[in-house]
Amino acid sequence: MPFYSKRDLQFQLFENLKVLDLTRFKYFEDHSQETFEMVLEAADSIATQSLFPLLTEMDRNEPKLVNGKIKVHEGMKKIVRQFGEDGWINATFSYKEGGQQLPNTIHLAAGFIFQAANYSSSVYPFLTTGAANLIRTFGNQKLIETFTPNMYNGKWQGTMALTEPDAGSSLTDLSTLAIPTEKEGIFKIKGQKIYISCGDHDACENVIHLMLARIKGAPAGVKGISLFVVPQKRVSNNEPNDVLTEGIYHKMGYKGAPIAHLMIGSNEGTEGYLVGEPNKGLSYMFQMMNEARVGVGMNAAAIGTAAYYASLAYAKERPQGRKIGEKDPAKPQIPIIAHADVKRMLLFQKSVTEGALSLLLYCATLGDIVHLAEGKEKEEAALLLDLLTPIAKSYPSEMCCLTTSAAVQVLGGAGYTTDFPVEQYYREARIHPIHEGTTGIHGLDLLGRKVLMQEGKALQLLASEIMKTIALAKEIEGMIPFAEKLEKYLQKAQQTSFHIFGKASKNPEEFLADATLYLEYIGILCISWQWLRQGITSQKVLISNSQDKDFYQGKLMALRYFFEYELVKMDGLGKRLVSEDILTVEMKGEWF
Amino acid sequence: MPFYSKRDLQFQLFENLKVLDLTRFKYFEDHSQETFEMVLEAADSIATQSLFPLLTEMDRNEPKLVNGKIKVHEGMKKIVRQFGEDGWINATFSYKEGGQQLPNTIHLAAGFIFQAANYSSSVYPFLTTGAANLIRTFGNQKLIETFTPNMYNGKWQGTMALTEPDAGSSLTDLSTLAIPTEKEGIFKIKGQKIYISCGDHDACENVIHLMLARIKGAPAGVKGISLFVVPQKRVSNNEPNDVLTEGIYHKMGYKGAPIAHLMIGSNEGTEGYLVGEPNKGLSYMFQMMNEARVGVGMNAAAIGTAAYYASLAYAKERPQGRKIGEKDPAKPQIPIIAHADVKRMLLFQKSVTEGALSLLLYCATLGDIVHLAEGKEKEEAALLLDLLTPIAKSYPSEMCCLTTSAAVQVLGGAGYTTDFPVEQYYREARIHPIHEGTTGIHGLDLLGRKVLMQEGKALQLLASEIMKTIALAKEIEGMIPFAEKLEKYLQKAQQTSFHIFGKASKNPEEFLADATLYLEYIGILCISWQWLRQGITSQKVLISNSQDKDFYQGKLMALRYFFEYELVKMDGLGKRLVSEDILTVEMKGEWF
Repeated sequence: MPFYSKRDLQFQLFENLKVLDLTRFKYFEDHSQETFEMVLEAADSIATQSLFPLLTEMDRNEPKLVNGKIKVHEGMKKIVRQFGEDGWINATFSYKEGGQQLPNTIHLAAGFIFQAANYSSSVYPFLTTGAANLIRTFGNQKLIETFTPNMYNGKWQGTMALTEPDAGSSLTDLSTLAIPTEKEGIFKIKGQKIYISCGDHDACENVIHLMLARIKGAPAGVKGISLFVVPQKRVSNNEPNDVLTEGIYHKMGYKGAPIAHLMIGSNEGTEGYLVGEPNKGLSYMFQMMNEARVGVGMNAAAIGTAAYYASLAYAKERPQGRKIGEKDPAKPQIPIIAHADVKRMLLFQKSVTEGALSLLLYCATLGDIVHLAEGKEKEEAALLLDLLTPIAKSYPSEMCCLTTSAAVQVLGGAGYTTDFPVEQYYREARIHPIHEGTTGIHGLDLLGRKVLMQEGKALQLLASEIMKTIALAKEIEGMIPFAEKLEKYLQKAQQTSFHIFGKASKNPEEFLADATLYLEYIGILCISWQWLRQGITSQKVLISNSQDKDFYQGKLMALRYFFEYELVKMDGLGKRLVSEDILTVEMKGEWF
Repeated sequence: MPFYSKRDLQFQLFENLKVLDLTRFKYFEDHSQETFEMVLEAADSIATQSLFPLLTEMDRNEPKLVNGKIKVHEGMKKIVRQFGEDGWINATFSYKEGGQQLPNTIHLAAGFIFQAANYSSSVYPFLTTGAANLIRTFGNQKLIETFTPNMYNGKWQGTMALTEPDAGSSLTDLSTLAIPTEKEGIFKIKGQKIYISCGDHDACENVIHLMLARIKGAPAGVKGISLFVVPQKRVSNNEPNDVLTEGIYHKMGYKGAPIAHLMIGSNEGTEGYLVGEPNKGLSYMFQMMNEARVGVGMNAAAIGTAAYYASLAYAKERPQGRKIGEKDPAKPQIPIIAHADVKRMLLFQKSVTEGALSLLLYCATLGDIVHLAEGKEKEEAALLLDLLTPIAKSYPSEMCCLTTSAAVQVLGGAGYTTDFPVEQYYREARIHPIHEGTTGIHGLDLLGRKVLMQEGKALQLLASEIMKTIALAKEIEGMIPFAEKLEKYLQKAQQTSFHIFGKASKNPEEFLADATLYLEYIGILCISWQWLRQGITSQKVLISNSQDKDFYQGKLMALRYFFEYELVKMDGLGKRLVSEDILTVEMKGEWF
């Protein structure tokens, strides 16, 4: 059963995004369409042969905590090592570091394939990459040498250990303590961490936590948070480092990845190694967070994609009912894909997942540009990426809860049973609006921080990028109505934004009360923009009479779908956003 | 932990709906507020003491098929008998039948309490009531005497056996065969039925299937479908009736109720008893379907309600973050219910679930009026109920997938774990847009049948009922802006409807392509209307200075929420509904 479309990924990367442009950077000079395609082929082959076959099994056989150690599906040992040995974990890093200097964009595209095949299994190497990236970027040479080689080869698991019982969304309130020892750079760590993905398991030989903690005497709040490397076993002697697995969380989905509750230093025996300077932990973490957040958006889009293809396959095969108006019961039933309402549910999934994928790859490319460009190009890419990150994280996360729901609905009763994978996708999709910052947090990030930074420069930049696409579209037959429609909505969005900004200085609580709606509103605008981009690319090919008309026709239909059914949702959202009724501020707890 | 609000149910029934008006019918003359309250108290006590404590257990310990027999949670035996012995199964039936002549409205309200406590367990008696109701209404005296007493007392389970492998939404294609025998009214039945809720289990002594089948030689299509009583064991000698349990479905949620795959007459040994006349089976089934469908809407609203209260309790207790603008990390954290975005998610749940409950109870009352009134009152109630049924089924079903999702989101990471019940509610809610007719089918029912019947008389009736509420609201201080807003949307909805109706005769496929969106559109209008009704009731009390201001203030805030955040969604939907782009009709399977 297909869980993604090679053809679409090809289109997204090479035709629409023109990812080969990245090879203009010296860092990528050895790369070409051929190397990129080899990478994607390799990803496809692991995904198809190793990951997808375990999708259901890993859901049905959850990790277990046995005698203080989490046991995961036995197939994970091989998979984790394979990711390491084949070079996936450090693929984007420099040759010097043993990497392949692969663009982040291609790495993310490969990740999309893994995630679509089996989300839980894809999390293990993804986390290790993130953790290793923190060490190599902010850690000293010794930390890099001590920890990264075995992370790169998949022997050791990396994690991000942020959350504590009293500090989830409110990282200000982190209380894990770090006490200096006489050894330089080494601290005794003491505290509790919860919801730590891959925080303990038996598929790797060690777990390397990138942990936030507060050095004794540090300032309160976010200004007093430092970053530490806290291994589960001490590297020098392989002895336990007093990081105990107190519990494992049982979850609605995403069951194949173990989520641990950790006790650190309960017996005063945990050593941690300071990364970079004291009290800069959160800023280090946030410099990496952008990529992680785009990554979470990709996870969601990947699960949505897998569900889309599962429901599409079913819709093509399942006969039920007849054309409207056909009253003769002696006529054979038709496949449900012939019903307009089923096509609507499929187009919904297609337009959201492919629209999201387009935005996510666009963001990944911005990430590559930020790393490698200089001057104005770098600056602008950074600004745009900063603005788009909460959207790229949240739009797919929220919407793929709905697209996986549509996939269940296409299958009807069958979709609700465990005989088909769509119910699992529905459960797995639901984590994404929560982890790596809830949607509410990203709304605050977008409206409270990103759109206002540098006097709204990022938002202007976005508008001008969208206007460039609109101008292009206006030159192409068949694209003009879409260009004009998007232009109208863009103008409206700007008016709405200015209206809201007016409240920023008067009353911040009122200003931010509907930040989540604003995030949704701008999200729809951005995906519409991505569809216009895809429409332009597709229409150009169709005009020049290609071999692959069905594919491009499908793209144009999805564009039409998005503009007809999704873009119009900005009307109601926009009306609410400019309303003066601040009822969610005025509401009181005792009135519920 | 509360799973519903007694106070709100009291409000809905006695203050807003004025359910006591029903006692004007002779059939209900023995009833009073006191008897109704006793019934609800009794329901509360079973729900709290017997059902809710098994909510999680029944989810974690699914029914199993063991040696051809489905074993359910052992607690169900006692629960099913209790429902029977306490008179719940036949409560609405006449004294002569051993019933209590209870209004359907109160029975449904009691059902709401059961469903909110533990949806799976509530299904068993609900199905038996439906099946018994078919026998008593359309069956002959002998069938009634043979089957109903042990269904009423809970010893025997009733089911509705419609679906077959090739006949889900398309009942036209039913192929289960009934061959006449020499014994009058007795047929040999042969076929397969799938997705039969409570189709087999060990908590009852027998299972009585109300089964659709086709008498040999009957016309093709829906005109050749008859209704049969097919017991699992023959009543005369308690011997098996060749109804074999071929399989059990494992589901995403709603796990406590067993769903069976049945083989009927594999060994030519199944006897079925014809109910009523041949070839009228589907029309009998549909006469009962209205109630079942309102019942499904109620299930969804009940699960949504339970999730709402679970997330509300959490939001009141969980400290996280500080007021926006409060930068001092030394200040204590505040409960998350103080955050506007959390209040938004709670108000969303409150406004949808209480709005849905209001519509559902209104429909139940229409059902009571249809049963007991005469002449124009009966006719109009029937017409309005027919129109509202697809909405009352689908609006809560679709929306409570979203409200339970909001409940998960309020809890954040905790909500995704099995430590809290919200993830279970999220999984359980998802069945309702599927069973008892998918949302797509109800869209077709509303737009293709209901709004057009008697030249649109039902829709006119609905509009005039809404206008009556608007007129009332215009007399009440504080309600005028809501009345005016709803009036504008009502007018717009009428224009939109007429626009769409224009396509009905030209091209039925185009006309019905967006029937699901039309259903959503009219659904929002109806719930807005229900909120205006609740607003009027609440505002009147507040003006006269009541003791319970918090409760009524909450109602007014939910009204404001619904008008500000939900009603405006009609803008985008309405724009799409009048669009001329028929892309879902034009889309081709090969373009996906």
